[in-house]
Amino acid sequence: MRLSRYFLPTLKEAPSDAQIVSHQLMLRAGLIKQEAAGIYAWLPLGLRVLNRIEQIVREEQERAGAVELLMPTLQLADLWRESGRYDAYGPEMLRITDRHERELLYGPTNEEMVTDIFRSFVKSYKALPLNLFHIQWKFRDERRPRFGVMRGREFLMKDAYSFDIDEASARKAYNRMFVAYLNTFARLGLKAVPMRADTGPIGGDLSHEFIVLAETGESQVFCDKALVEMPAPGPGVDWDDLQAIVDERIGKYAATEEMHDEALFESQTAEADRLTARGIEVGHIFYFGTKYSAPMKAKVAGPDGKDTDVHMGSYGVGVSRLLGAIIEASHDQAGIIWPDAVAPFDVVVINLRVNDEAVCVACEEAVAKLEAAGRSVLYDDTDERPGGKFATADLIGIPWQLTIGPKGLADGVVELKRRATGEKLTLPLDQALETLA
Amino acid sequence: MRLSRYFLPTLKEAPSDAQIVSHQLMLRAGLIKQEAAGIYAWLPLGLRVLNRIEQIVREEQERAGAVELLMPTLQLADLWRESGRYDAYGPEMLRITDRHERELLYGPTNEEMVTDIFRSFVKSYKALPLNLFHIQWKFRDERRPRFGVMRGREFLMKDAYSFDIDEASARKAYNRMFVAYLNTFARLGLKAVPMRADTGPIGGDLSHEFIVLAETGESQVFCDKALVEMPAPGPGVDWDDLQAIVDERIGKYAATEEMHDEALFESQTAEADRLTARGIEVGHIFYFGTKYSAPMKAKVAGPDGKDTDVHMGSYGVGVSRLLGAIIEASHDQAGIIWPDAVAPFDVVVINLRVNDEAVCVACEEAVAKLEAAGRSVLYDDTDERPGGKFATADLIGIPWQLTIGPKGLADGVVELKRRATGEKLTLPLDQALETLA
Repeated sequence: MRLSRYFLPTLKEAPSDAQIVSHQLMLRAGLIKQEAAGIYAWLPLGLRVLNRIEQIVREEQERAGAVELLMPTLQLADLWRESGRYDAYGPEMLRITDRHERELLYGPTNEEMVTDIFRSFVKSYKALPLNLFHIQWKFRDERRPRFGVMRGREFLMKDAYSFDIDEASARKAYNRMFVAYLNTFARLGLKAVPMRADTGPIGGDLSHEFIVLAETGESQVFCDKALVEMPAPGPGVDWDDLQAIVDERIGKYAATEEMHDEALFESQTAEADRLTARGIEVGHIFYFGTKYSAPMKAKVAGPDGKDTDVHMGSYGVGVSRLLGAIIEASHDQAGIIWPDAVAPFDVVVINLRVNDEAVCVACEEAVAKLEAAGRSVLYDDTDERPGGKFATADLIGIPWQLTIGPKGLADGVVELKRRATGEKLTLPLDQALETLA
Repeated sequence: MRLSRYFLPTLKEAPSDAQIVSHQLMLRAGLIKQEAAGIYAWLPLGLRVLNRIEQIVREEQERAGAVELLMPTLQLADLWRESGRYDAYGPEMLRITDRHERELLYGPTNEEMVTDIFRSFVKSYKALPLNLFHIQWKFRDERRPRFGVMRGREFLMKDAYSFDIDEASARKAYNRMFVAYLNTFARLGLKAVPMRADTGPIGGDLSHEFIVLAETGESQVFCDKALVEMPAPGPGVDWDDLQAIVDERIGKYAATEEMHDEALFESQTAEADRLTARGIEVGHIFYFGTKYSAPMKAKVAGPDGKDTDVHMGSYGVGVSRLLGAIIEASHDQAGIIWPDAVAPFDVVVINLRVNDEAVCVACEEAVAKLEAAGRSVLYDDTDERPGGKFATADLIGIPWQLTIGPKGLADGVVELKRRATGEKLTLPLDQALETLA
């Protein structure tokens, strides 16, 4: 992609109402533009990152056996009356009346709708276990939206819903999502720790939040240091028996502020292993049994022919929020440092003199070769000065910067910089391309 | 994908309120479920088709030089007051009030918002031409939603917006989208004819609709037969000079009912070439000059340093509606016939006896080999009877059916059926796999 034909409106200064670094950097790097309080447009560079995160989340859901569908953003109020949540949900629910005076709402979550889909079609235990997920825009009318996409009102969420014949099977579904989340966040370049959590308005008796540690995190968290360094299980696990993997983690102390019990922390964790840190919630999983299936009559016939309420869980990942969390966890003074897996482009090729034909030819050949090798490339072919180009490249955080100028080219060399470390290599173009391919 | 672990709720009978064949088939084939009037959930099979259509639309937009972003679903009413459309739009606009009594709306289109994004960042003609597109859910509160996704309320649309320094350049942008649309619909397996159109609430003085011909189309259309058979220009055109390609088409008569002029039709078209047919609108493009940029003060400095209102166009494709249009154009008594390019799976492998180990092994090997060759496969491993499996395969319209049973296997053969033609071949498994790979 040629930068001169792209739309990448970077800013020198972040607006003063952007309080946290991820919000500031997302505005400065041209990732988002605010359209209303807590409502953002995703500019081209931001959308590319959002799409990559979404795709990793999707792949790990599918690997764990979940099946994707897509529910609409608007829902009927009557559906929420069946579960009793329409009146209980409070002012965070955006309530809407259409031209025929029917009551709708902009879905903040989808337990009721997915339960209705399930009960409409599934009648026998033979179709179980079933886990349905979607990745869709949601709306929560936060009283005080802030921190950019970290506490927005219109946000992109992956939510999965599991259906099982009994609690034992439902706990297996819970474990599958637990492990899928560990793998997902690891692929995103994040250290995310599962912590005991309050179930809040979703309900249920078993729940974990997945918390990314970052100095600028929104809340205090307490955990055993071992949890932070424990590697993700990876895809090669026995998906039918994950209890040992889960137990190894939930056996160690980890809790958010609301759930924290200092005495328990001290009794379970040696002093040297106790970590108190700041964290950002990026995922939340729930097992809530028949809380929705019972009032909504989502039953299946069991092996004995008798109807039984289906056991359910739900599993959320804040996809748009993850951009903020990743930036909070990975940036420096100069800007964003994208992990390779979610970077908007793999390489930025910086042309130091756009009116020099030899430089342009070398740049264009480099871009063509990198793209042929499957790399995504942003080509800075603008007439901006070198200092400005370097500053932009650092700000937008693309993992590799390949700089080609007349002087180096005369000596047969280019400069390759790794954004994360700042390490720079001067080497022949062919070698640089080999490194990148 | 194993059908036994998938979620594909097919129906024997379509609900009686589904009046047109695409709506009936989408419900029967388990593509969608209605959640409210004109609001649908996309079940897994439907979502796969929707995603494939979306991706083809995206690729052709990018080929024509458009850059993707993503605007939110909700917009501020005040933005629409700037253009004067907030009061003019009428009851089709879904108006919403949030907890702080701020007026929002669910975007039915995005001229105002994209103009605001443009004016916030672009100040010079040097950034032009620019074409920004997004693919996002929209809402139009139709008085009488019907025909399934063909006239829904919450629908997925691709909308692009071009910005140019003057009318001549804006017409080039218009031509690029005109050709992109011809290529898009051809890739989708559709014959779509551009027709002179009324500009309606978008405004402007130049507009074409792209109409798919189908016996069950919503409206009467009139055109020169030559337009129907004219091949799409394809990607290898000179994107800077498309006037001849556009002129060749707009020089021939083609008009929807509202724009039809019988005398003109007869004078421009020989009797033998006159076609009167039914059609479905799948795209609509507009050039409207400074209709939005002037009131919203979207100006750029020209080469002479003087500020000038930017010239704009907008270009819509009904992505979710396209599923209905494709089915209207491609089905038979037994069900849907998906064009290869948008089919939810390339092949369905039908296991005729799931309790026969040799058959299961052969099926699983076939699935593995097809997937290794890059084919997407639905594997019918259910204990349904053969007749039911064949009926489902025909109903859901996957282009190839590979049937493996104990009798054929004993003779070393399988059956390969092409859904579109009904042609069946009995041949060794290896040869069938070669044909499919």
